[in-house]
Amino acid sequence: MTAHAPPSRPIWLDGDTSTIKVIDQRKLPHQVEVMTLSTVDEVIFAIQDMVVRGAPLIGATGAYGVMLAAVSGKNLTPADHFSFIQKECGRLKAARPTAVNLGWAVDRVLAGLSSADSPASWIETARKTAEAIADEDAENCRQIGLHGVSLIEALSTGKSGAPVNILTHCNAGWLACIEHGTATAPIYEAFRQNIPVHVWVDETRPLNQGARLTAWELGQAKVPHTVITDNAGGYLMQKGLVDLVMVGTDRTTRTGDVANKIGTYLKALAAKDNGIPFYVALPSSTFDWNLTDGVNEIPIESRNPDEVRFVQGLDRDKVISVRVPPSQSPAGNFAFDVTPARLITGLITERGICKASEKDIRRLFPEYF
Amino acid sequence: MTAHAPPSRPIWLDGDTSTIKVIDQRKLPHQVEVMTLSTVDEVIFAIQDMVVRGAPLIGATGAYGVMLAAVSGKNLTPADHFSFIQKECGRLKAARPTAVNLGWAVDRVLAGLSSADSPASWIETARKTAEAIADEDAENCRQIGLHGVSLIEALSTGKSGAPVNILTHCNAGWLACIEHGTATAPIYEAFRQNIPVHVWVDETRPLNQGARLTAWELGQAKVPHTVITDNAGGYLMQKGLVDLVMVGTDRTTRTGDVANKIGTYLKALAAKDNGIPFYVALPSSTFDWNLTDGVNEIPIESRNPDEVRFVQGLDRDKVISVRVPPSQSPAGNFAFDVTPARLITGLITERGICKASEKDIRRLFPEYF
Repeated sequence: MTAHAPPSRPIWLDGDTSTIKVIDQRKLPHQVEVMTLSTVDEVIFAIQDMVVRGAPLIGATGAYGVMLAAVSGKNLTPADHFSFIQKECGRLKAARPTAVNLGWAVDRVLAGLSSADSPASWIETARKTAEAIADEDAENCRQIGLHGVSLIEALSTGKSGAPVNILTHCNAGWLACIEHGTATAPIYEAFRQNIPVHVWVDETRPLNQGARLTAWELGQAKVPHTVITDNAGGYLMQKGLVDLVMVGTDRTTRTGDVANKIGTYLKALAAKDNGIPFYVALPSSTFDWNLTDGVNEIPIESRNPDEVRFVQGLDRDKVISVRVPPSQSPAGNFAFDVTPARLITGLITERGICKASEKDIRRLFPEYF
Repeated sequence: MTAHAPPSRPIWLDGDTSTIKVIDQRKLPHQVEVMTLSTVDEVIFAIQDMVVRGAPLIGATGAYGVMLAAVSGKNLTPADHFSFIQKECGRLKAARPTAVNLGWAVDRVLAGLSSADSPASWIETARKTAEAIADEDAENCRQIGLHGVSLIEALSTGKSGAPVNILTHCNAGWLACIEHGTATAPIYEAFRQNIPVHVWVDETRPLNQGARLTAWELGQAKVPHTVITDNAGGYLMQKGLVDLVMVGTDRTTRTGDVANKIGTYLKALAAKDNGIPFYVALPSSTFDWNLTDGVNEIPIESRNPDEVRFVQGLDRDKVISVRVPPSQSPAGNFAFDVTPARLITGLITERGICKASEKDIRRLFPEYF
């Protein structure tokens, strides 16, 4: 891998050293840097500091973290080793509260390790499960693309070759997943099929994942796009300049409410007010099958207010942060909001498209009901 | 005036030199600098480059600009002088398209100049009219405060001393007006009356007038406030953390639609969805009595995309701009959106509070119907 060929996945295993490599997403789009994660503490730091972010990628990173826990504990007695791994799993799961994939992935790797087996096998089993989770994520996103492209294709009919204008919020691209992305997968698939598309990229304050990451991804793939402020979507919808809204989700209730990056709810309200379809793309690993009321039940993470007060960007050739408000003004930093199912036209999953309702979700995922 | 005592108005006349002084709002909150405007070109620059901004202040600046036009042309023949002033008024009115106050104020000063009078009197008459406009703006905002405080007082009842949480977007404070502000006037009045208030300040991308200007104003006045991203308001409303939304307007139809800073519409949708009162504070000079359909009739300014791509802030002791998205990604910069009357609980004017409807606006302003 060289500076000219960025990695095609945001996370991968270095087979030689049993360490994890990740793209440091804090530096994008200005610098493409790879970070090595060798310990559970480093994995927790990477998740909390958003070196890696996006629900599916957080899950995969947590899964690989269990493997690192198994490696770290290998000199303990078998009994101590197993309880050490269990304890480390608890720490991993607590790293970020909103993404349900984290707990799901960590629990899945842990469940594959039986205390009856030899400790030596735990490392290998954890590695295999983590790799399987990553590969399944990639395949699920590919399926989301194949299902979702039908929506874009249908909207393209009657536009006489004019592009389908798709608005997206935050980054639900391959950087957030493993490959393809969730909300971007249908866009990439449409682009591959030569269906004309144009993407309105919400910059997504405070951390600007749209302006930094989605714009970078789309630019790399040559997909036409325009960066806008988070304030602009309502105006564009009023003026008929948005045909479709597609976003990702960090946690989805069995009734179809979704917790996604703060500001998603505002776009859903505007789409509803202007009769524009609003779709959420998700692998089923983001479902929290226990929840029925997203607004009241999904925990919303509050993060460091300095993420609001300081904006990171490029000053000539250096990435620096500048302070925008007065030094004395406090700031609040709420990371997610919940979009109720009533505002969502449909969910695009790896098994197909369904309405954001318990009944229709059950049609696609009967085994969880 | 020293660095320790910022001016109490954002614009004033230097009586000794017949020039205009304005606070350079582009540098706030990091630097409080005063700019001198001596020519119509400098006035147009100040309006377009947002040295001054906010509907009432843009109007007052345009009014003073007519005086500068009269000064500039004083060596022409009387006939040439008058047509010169008329031509300069046309240029002033075109400086920014959305704020109706600009054309209103320029026309009012021009109407006060009769071609029958002596050219020497034009400068004096223009000065007096511009001063009158500024003083009336200040008085109108004082009245808006006195009327609007009743809403805050009513919400305060039953909160057992807890602050009334008010969300505002952009800067509709004294920096945007002459004194008191529009949306801030009821807040300042409540604070003066010891009614506990707390203000959620939308940062207001792309130019961050909330984070930079409203936060600075409120901080100077010691009003409790918290800066938030434009994305956060919906979440706060879902969680019951907003009691009232108050914003300004740049142009208001006779039917009660308002064009205000981009993103206002999204907050109005969220307020409606959560049953939270949404008020717009305005001097009647922002009414465009000819318009009945804001979304289709109010021209929306597109500004330089670099205002979206670059963010200005403080790096140690220097105000600089950093680029956030990739260099190749285009950006769009739409400056305003229109909030339809159906989403507005009421208008707070200098004559009292009315519904956002043609009928109730007529009750307060019968002479325009």
